[in-house]
Amino acid sequence: MMKIAVDAAGGEYAPHEIVKGAIKAAQEYKVDIILVGKKTVLHVLAGRYLNKLGISIAPASQTIGFHEHPMEALRSKPKSSIAIGINLVKEGRAQAFVSAGNTGAVLCAALFNLGRIAGVERPALASIVKLVPLSPALLIDAGANADCRPSHLAEFAQLGNIYAQRILGIESPRIGLLSNGKEETKGNRLTQESHHLLKKTSLNFIGNIEGHDMVDGTADVIVTDGFTGNIVLKTVEGLGDSLINLRQVGHAVSSAYHLRGRALLADVGLGSLAQGMDYREYGGACLLGVKGNIIVSHGRSQAKAIKNAIGLAKRTAEQNICQLIAEAGYG
Amino acid sequence: MMKIAVDAAGGEYAPHEIVKGAIKAAQEYKVDIILVGKKTVLHVLAGRYLNKLGISIAPASQTIGFHEHPMEALRSKPKSSIAIGINLVKEGRAQAFVSAGNTGAVLCAALFNLGRIAGVERPALASIVKLVPLSPALLIDAGANADCRPSHLAEFAQLGNIYAQRILGIESPRIGLLSNGKEETKGNRLTQESHHLLKKTSLNFIGNIEGHDMVDGTADVIVTDGFTGNIVLKTVEGLGDSLINLRQVGHAVSSAYHLRGRALLADVGLGSLAQGMDYREYGGACLLGVKGNIIVSHGRSQAKAIKNAIGLAKRTAEQNICQLIAEAGYG
Repeated sequence: MMKIAVDAAGGEYAPHEIVKGAIKAAQEYKVDIILVGKKTVLHVLAGRYLNKLGISIAPASQTIGFHEHPMEALRSKPKSSIAIGINLVKEGRAQAFVSAGNTGAVLCAALFNLGRIAGVERPALASIVKLVPLSPALLIDAGANADCRPSHLAEFAQLGNIYAQRILGIESPRIGLLSNGKEETKGNRLTQESHHLLKKTSLNFIGNIEGHDMVDGTADVIVTDGFTGNIVLKTVEGLGDSLINLRQVGHAVSSAYHLRGRALLADVGLGSLAQGMDYREYGGACLLGVKGNIIVSHGRSQAKAIKNAIGLAKRTAEQNICQLIAEAGYG
Repeated sequence: MMKIAVDAAGGEYAPHEIVKGAIKAAQEYKVDIILVGKKTVLHVLAGRYLNKLGISIAPASQTIGFHEHPMEALRSKPKSSIAIGINLVKEGRAQAFVSAGNTGAVLCAALFNLGRIAGVERPALASIVKLVPLSPALLIDAGANADCRPSHLAEFAQLGNIYAQRILGIESPRIGLLSNGKEETKGNRLTQESHHLLKKTSLNFIGNIEGHDMVDGTADVIVTDGFTGNIVLKTVEGLGDSLINLRQVGHAVSSAYHLRGRALLADVGLGSLAQGMDYREYGGACLLGVKGNIIVSHGRSQAKAIKNAIGLAKRTAEQNICQLIAEAGYG
């Protein structure tokens, strides 16, 4: 049975919501779960499922907070849930690690402890975004590398291409370079040079795409630096939250007026859009390019997001993404 | 009477929608309009309003297309509507110029023909965004400068501060630096150094803000480079279009079910959000830092957007923004 390590100490809603999501995932996805965190607490929270549902505990007495400096925290806290979770992957005792904790610390621990896959210069976060119903796309880099060179963006495209093929099931993903204009000459120096590099690859590169193209489903893989990618993603998530709130108000009103039975088309459409903008649906971003399957979840993740992140971790591990990246040898 | 020059040849829906919007603006805002474009065409479209509603024509026999290279087009087409419109402002025959044409060409013509205000290194596009009901914010730079240095971002903050004070009526605008994390140490090299500079100004600098903070109304002025700003703005606009479409479907369904009378709270909220994300509402972005009032409209602008852009041009001219920038002398 596949084993997935889950950081039970990371995230705003840890440990309760993390444990809840992990138990649901164990039931739904038929995976074994290793909860990484404070032993006594986890015994209380998950006690009745231990050794039944395939749920076990890996003790980690320390926790890295959101505002701690990643490298310093990892050095000073060798028994943090993040360090121990990553180690479980390194030792092959878990096939993947899911954490909603300090993203920087997870990235550092993965980079330095698991290491990069040969040929990969800059591992990057790939996040699934679904702004078009039924047509999810991959945004890479979603925030691992704030400052990038053109060769990094070309690499993100290669990593995203493999992930979109395997996880989104798209045979020849359309690769778009996020820029401030469609023409090749538009963009900043980074995208102009990256465009040049991407044209020379064997990828299905469709050229520059603009912000609104993400909503129009023009590309399957949206390539960008981690700074821009992170800002765009958080903007979309923020708007998604607004939509979800508005919908809840709408449902309360519909209910008061006994309109519940009349499902409005607009509400269905709106729900689909709001869902697509909701980070809880996919649960997390996958760190591509390190020797191990690492899913970074939103700090505000509750049970549903964690459950979905574990589902994504399972699919990522099943598809042998790391091996495919190593074999691609595009470095 | 204030005179506003309008590029009747620029934009996807030129000249019909531009002329329609200009006539509406003349009626609504009590401004004189100078339509810049092909004389015979404009005589046909606006003939009955000429010399009555304060509408006149400035002949421009050439048009710069969307895909033309800005500088080359300006050189080879001295009689383009953009060149002639900018010239009307330079000669003081118009107090502002509104164009939905080739943005790059408008920026180049403004920079080289009007020139920069003394002390300003990089004029920038300021765009009003309203993702929070009743609480509009200013995004600067919305796309004029794809590659920026820290000093440029500090300058954008100063320009945006003046514009937000005068146009949004906020006494001490909260200035936020768009980044991929709240902490001072987060960001790319550009924002890290810009943060350092901004802290030393007398501005009401509230630090880094993230994508979702734009939806939460954390800042009144959102400072960013033109590459990131443009992508974020177009993403929001694209999502706004989706919402507007969904709402229209919803209205059709409500109507079929005779629910029209029952205004749903959610629909009001949704309408407010969709409206805030709609570029048509503000009509355009203001180019701050050049010697003249220039409003750049969306290429897809129809009558409503053009009318609103002219309204914004009027408010910008009335507030003497150029003079205030010159007097601020922060350069």
